[in-house]
Amino acid sequence: MLEKSPLAPKRFPRIPEIAGVELAGRHVGLKPAKGVKDLMVARLARGTTVAGVFTQSRCPSAPVDWCRKILSKGKAQAVVVNSGNANAFTGIAGDTVVAETVKAAAKLIGCPRDQVYVASTGVIGEPVPPDYIAGKLPVMVRGLKPQSWRQAADAILTTDTFPKAACRTVKIGNTDVTIAGFIKGSGMIAPDMATMLSFVFTDAKIPARVLQSTLKSAADKSYNCITVDSDTSTSDTVLLFATGKGKRHQAVTRATDKHFKEFRRAIEDLMIDLATQVVRDGEGAQKLITMDVTGAVSNNSARKIGLTVANSPLVKTAIAGEDANWGRIVMAVGKTGEPADRDKLSITMGGVPITEWGIVREDYVEDPVAEHLKGQEVHIGIDIGLGRGKARVWTCDLTHGYITINADYRS
Amino acid sequence: MLEKSPLAPKRFPRIPEIAGVELAGRHVGLKPAKGVKDLMVARLARGTTVAGVFTQSRCPSAPVDWCRKILSKGKAQAVVVNSGNANAFTGIAGDTVVAETVKAAAKLIGCPRDQVYVASTGVIGEPVPPDYIAGKLPVMVRGLKPQSWRQAADAILTTDTFPKAACRTVKIGNTDVTIAGFIKGSGMIAPDMATMLSFVFTDAKIPARVLQSTLKSAADKSYNCITVDSDTSTSDTVLLFATGKGKRHQAVTRATDKHFKEFRRAIEDLMIDLATQVVRDGEGAQKLITMDVTGAVSNNSARKIGLTVANSPLVKTAIAGEDANWGRIVMAVGKTGEPADRDKLSITMGGVPITEWGIVREDYVEDPVAEHLKGQEVHIGIDIGLGRGKARVWTCDLTHGYITINADYRS
Repeated sequence: MLEKSPLAPKRFPRIPEIAGVELAGRHVGLKPAKGVKDLMVARLARGTTVAGVFTQSRCPSAPVDWCRKILSKGKAQAVVVNSGNANAFTGIAGDTVVAETVKAAAKLIGCPRDQVYVASTGVIGEPVPPDYIAGKLPVMVRGLKPQSWRQAADAILTTDTFPKAACRTVKIGNTDVTIAGFIKGSGMIAPDMATMLSFVFTDAKIPARVLQSTLKSAADKSYNCITVDSDTSTSDTVLLFATGKGKRHQAVTRATDKHFKEFRRAIEDLMIDLATQVVRDGEGAQKLITMDVTGAVSNNSARKIGLTVANSPLVKTAIAGEDANWGRIVMAVGKTGEPADRDKLSITMGGVPITEWGIVREDYVEDPVAEHLKGQEVHIGIDIGLGRGKARVWTCDLTHGYITINADYRS
Repeated sequence: MLEKSPLAPKRFPRIPEIAGVELAGRHVGLKPAKGVKDLMVARLARGTTVAGVFTQSRCPSAPVDWCRKILSKGKAQAVVVNSGNANAFTGIAGDTVVAETVKAAAKLIGCPRDQVYVASTGVIGEPVPPDYIAGKLPVMVRGLKPQSWRQAADAILTTDTFPKAACRTVKIGNTDVTIAGFIKGSGMIAPDMATMLSFVFTDAKIPARVLQSTLKSAADKSYNCITVDSDTSTSDTVLLFATGKGKRHQAVTRATDKHFKEFRRAIEDLMIDLATQVVRDGEGAQKLITMDVTGAVSNNSARKIGLTVANSPLVKTAIAGEDANWGRIVMAVGKTGEPADRDKLSITMGGVPITEWGIVREDYVEDPVAEHLKGQEVHIGIDIGLGRGKARVWTCDLTHGYITINADYRS
């Protein structure tokens, strides 16, 4: 068992019941360690709308293929998620596992199969007996409870060192609605691979089309702005469910509705909370790094630059070593291929201006930056000086812990 | 001082004199350690043609800017290379250093300024006094000798653990010509950055235009197919010089000349030799990994896939841990964005077929692969199953040594 990340939040958040959502998390034997939860089921009220974003991998897992296929229907009544096996690169057999699981869940819950979502995380390339998960569903469904957030969040972890969840209450019009979600990511057991799975629920009533555009734009500012090690999973899945079973609120018909703005902001805020918890649990992480890129030619360009710097092993090891090595940031900006001009680039660390006009500032002294780098949270500012594009991205440092977890685990 | 890489060649190669090339390498005080060489000068016979390829970084060093500017002239009579300071992100001051160096070298050698090439590697963002290098040139030029290959190769190193050179003799028509070159790369002293510099010389007579196309296509199969840590330097520079002072040979007028084919092959072979020496000296490297990607939709697509797998920290740490974790290769292929189909992907390690048709082979046993991974040279085969594109790329494993060199060096 890995030690809890030093960057973990103090405690698991308090999450109220969300009308129309029931959850269960249990140990069913997919993970060898006794009692460690490895299967999660959520039941959603009839009429729940769903939005999803998935891995861009060209080698996606069987569950991802299934979810993509049914997403256009826009409705969900069940989610089944297992940890301990990714059901990825398992060929036709992997599709059979999904089919059997979906069939059993649909029957138990009493809903069409295309309203059953599935996700898997864990060992890649190892087959699961086709009806193993299906066979565990009756006991899972019997155990569903509206308050089982912690059990559900626990059941989807792999080598995460803490469960990750977040909750917000916001108004649509004059009515309170609740949003809650959980996420896993950055865990690893050889021969596993890091996978990000995230499930977010709200009792608001939102059409699937509006929900999808809300999720997509929030994901672009949260999940798509984090990186631990630049490796994209075969299984990344984010699902957002709206049960419509909360208090009756002013109807939402378009993503641009003025009274829907607060909700959109809250979704974005909650997803950033979840996404940065993944970075806080990045393998071997000792420091959370926030990077603000400004002055790029577009927001997209800013994000690309930010992620390239955030993925640079030389930048990440420098920060692990608490070394104010800003030259490596210049290098990483240069290699992105995005428009940049050495002589317009300004860099700050911990708010301290370091470079200006393509050269180190005459008044720059390293001491306050060195002091800032000793903390657990590091801030880097990069102004490209060309336009108005901006982005904020998050990563963690690259330490011996990462190598130990990923190279030495089986030895 | 870092320990010599376990992957280093047994000895520095024997290199004959190349007519029209004289070299010098000395300590002039750019590196603090006494006696460690840090300045290299090469004098080239009048009429020497030159070809060059440079970093794609948007934040290139001042010397790279200069070389790019003069390359179209196609002639060279001097090269001045220092280690210990990258002269990158040094603003106008950096350009002044280059100008002073070029001016002094041109005067001493007696050639136009646009025939003086420069390169720098080492600390980034630290100014050099403008005439420091210029002031050291008289003693360098006095010391030029045709046989000083080892001294020259030594003088361009940063934290490389061994000097890297290679030599070939080939025929153009019926006449022997010689090619020799040296390279540095993958060394690191905080707060330095890895930089690849490579200089190759031949006594053949080759027009600049032909030399450039020869260099470009050889670079695409050598330097552009290696990666240590995915970070692109501000200073990467490869220069190929043809003095035309060897034995008179059948004239070369086009890159496609039939009697020029053997030379082109030899250049490619020599550059692969140099490039893989850089990988063998990759920071913390314990294993040299060769990847053959076949069946991609194009050679370019194959190379992108190969480099993405070669840059994956999860693949590299698995190999460091001698873990036959082929699932991570699937993941890395999937994330490239290049055309790939999970169900057509075949993977081999050490020549052992592992997967076929999107699933692990029924007859796969891990033992021979685990045995192969214990060696110093690891082979990975990836067949995409879609087309005829292929590429070979090289990388090294990612070990605790990489973290130690890059994070802990100053602490």
